[in-house]
Amino acid sequence: MIKELSQLISQIKPVDPAWLAQARERLDSLTKPPGSLGRLEEIAARYVAIRGELFPPLARKQIVVFAADHGVVAEGVSAFPQEVTRQMVYNFLQGGAGINVLARHVGAAVEVVDIGVNHVFGEQPGLISQKVAYGSRNMAREPALTREEAVQSMLVGVERAQAAIAAGADALAAGDMGIGNTTPAAALAVVFTGKPASVVTGRGTGIGDNTWRHKVGVINRSLEIHKPTADHPLEALAKVGGLDIGGIAGLILGAAAGQRPVLLDGFIATAGALVAAHLAPAVTDYLIAAHCSVESGHQLMLDTLGLKPLLNLQLRLGEGTGAALGLGMLDAALKIYKEMATFDEAGVAEKHS
Amino acid sequence: MIKELSQLISQIKPVDPAWLAQARERLDSLTKPPGSLGRLEEIAARYVAIRGELFPPLARKQIVVFAADHGVVAEGVSAFPQEVTRQMVYNFLQGGAGINVLARHVGAAVEVVDIGVNHVFGEQPGLISQKVAYGSRNMAREPALTREEAVQSMLVGVERAQAAIAAGADALAAGDMGIGNTTPAAALAVVFTGKPASVVTGRGTGIGDNTWRHKVGVINRSLEIHKPTADHPLEALAKVGGLDIGGIAGLILGAAAGQRPVLLDGFIATAGALVAAHLAPAVTDYLIAAHCSVESGHQLMLDTLGLKPLLNLQLRLGEGTGAALGLGMLDAALKIYKEMATFDEAGVAEKHS
Repeated sequence: MIKELSQLISQIKPVDPAWLAQARERLDSLTKPPGSLGRLEEIAARYVAIRGELFPPLARKQIVVFAADHGVVAEGVSAFPQEVTRQMVYNFLQGGAGINVLARHVGAAVEVVDIGVNHVFGEQPGLISQKVAYGSRNMAREPALTREEAVQSMLVGVERAQAAIAAGADALAAGDMGIGNTTPAAALAVVFTGKPASVVTGRGTGIGDNTWRHKVGVINRSLEIHKPTADHPLEALAKVGGLDIGGIAGLILGAAAGQRPVLLDGFIATAGALVAAHLAPAVTDYLIAAHCSVESGHQLMLDTLGLKPLLNLQLRLGEGTGAALGLGMLDAALKIYKEMATFDEAGVAEKHS
Repeated sequence: MIKELSQLISQIKPVDPAWLAQARERLDSLTKPPGSLGRLEEIAARYVAIRGELFPPLARKQIVVFAADHGVVAEGVSAFPQEVTRQMVYNFLQGGAGINVLARHVGAAVEVVDIGVNHVFGEQPGLISQKVAYGSRNMAREPALTREEAVQSMLVGVERAQAAIAAGADALAAGDMGIGNTTPAAALAVVFTGKPASVVTGRGTGIGDNTWRHKVGVINRSLEIHKPTADHPLEALAKVGGLDIGGIAGLILGAAAGQRPVLLDGFIATAGALVAAHLAPAVTDYLIAAHCSVESGHQLMLDTLGLKPLLNLQLRLGEGTGAALGLGMLDAALKIYKEMATFDEAGVAEKHS
């Protein structure tokens, strides 16, 4: 399994800056002051470079939501009970969740993957069953995952990226559902940013001061027991991560290997991105940070990845909701790049030299 | 004419906060942690309050672009020649400009109004001919507009709002086209924010350091000659404003009187909003600041209006491009509000109490 992952990682190359320059030339020929569409121009150029063609299509947008449970909820770190994970999976399948609404809004498809929910779903139309385990273990007492489970969760993600690309996906986005998952994500944030737990830990779905202090304590205890390090990202994922986070890390590796961008959602998705980027640093070329979460550590995690978020709408829902909005922005950016008239075409005078 | 304007202004009422509370109740019943969709929830609630109904439609979105020339270009304040204003109007009519692309992206209609271009267009399919004058005068030497022209430009804007609402528009956005128009907009920013010209003046379409210093000097000279004050917004518009800015101010008054939101674009549109808000303070209830422009004074102008921009994408194009993206966000927000399942509907457990 590790071999499979190593092979994939060796296929991930940085994007060719020559494409960025060619895209910039096209953008500067359009009827607007150079650079005046700011970050839209930046992500259009990046998309061209990722795809490695001058006028890449952007027809099919695929959002993949990884759902998993987290043993650490036994420590009382979340504002919602664990059964909400499975209840929300049903909500996704019925189209009633935030991610369903926003995906429809931007014309993206949503795929829901049971990578580790503590529930037997049976046959469910629309649900991808790739359960690695019935949730992670309580990291405050033992490693959250075995090394094999961690690798397996990443391979599930890789497979979802490859299946999406094979089905024609032009751009991907990663989402998450898992009650308790801001706790492992914050633990991974400590590992990869080097900042203390008290700085990177947020309120999750909405805990009060006492529960927040307790959550920070649980994270610190877990880190003390397992001593994960940024040099060993797979081990860190196993020790203090989770199956949803592993799935997202794998999706990112699979997308980058297949030259597709991944719109990064918030805190959980970025924890997955940190794992992926420490295995294959070139993946950051394929990541577009859709938004900055309210969750306190998120900006620091994006800084570590060298990414600047597109939106700051005070979101803290997860599910891929911010990434869905980011897909809409990418769409707008590429339309600007493709559909605007050039100065020549429109007979508009250029800037004084 | 002034009477007509005063009558309209008397019709503008603050929104009823009871609607905000009712919208908040609905938002908190949806399957997400309360408030977790941040600013999307905020603008959905605002839209409900503006429309004064619990499930308002948002089918028709109208962007109105006011095009006008500015006599102050004679001072050499812009990076582009004046003929670009009319050339861009043709580009709008042919659908090749940035605003056309982004309007199509968000499903909005674009209307182009010749409110003061220094050019005889003749019959042009799609162009609304409401020319008040062939551009403003050079404010560095004489008042940009007569008081009558200023009022007339606002009445054109009011009429466009009323026509759009009569045709079924649910939400409006204001855009601008006018080479040189960041100079009067910066002068108005000085008037209404009280900050010095050197602080609120930006690079417009892309001028260098020397031209920027010259531009600040031109603005200061104009302000010294005419002494506009925030207490006399109509006079300020006449002395150091422009016809596009007057049109936008009128559109905002007309929209607020008709209980429709206006998505504010950047620097120029916000100068119009400052004029409108100093005539009718309640209009700020109807404004949604779509984005924060690169143009340096924009954030200060929004602060003065008590508005917080939704997006910060480093845009500085104008035309209503940022407002178009804001309309897309409003659409997303309202779909969240209307289409998400409630906890009851989805059978999802609520937060621990």
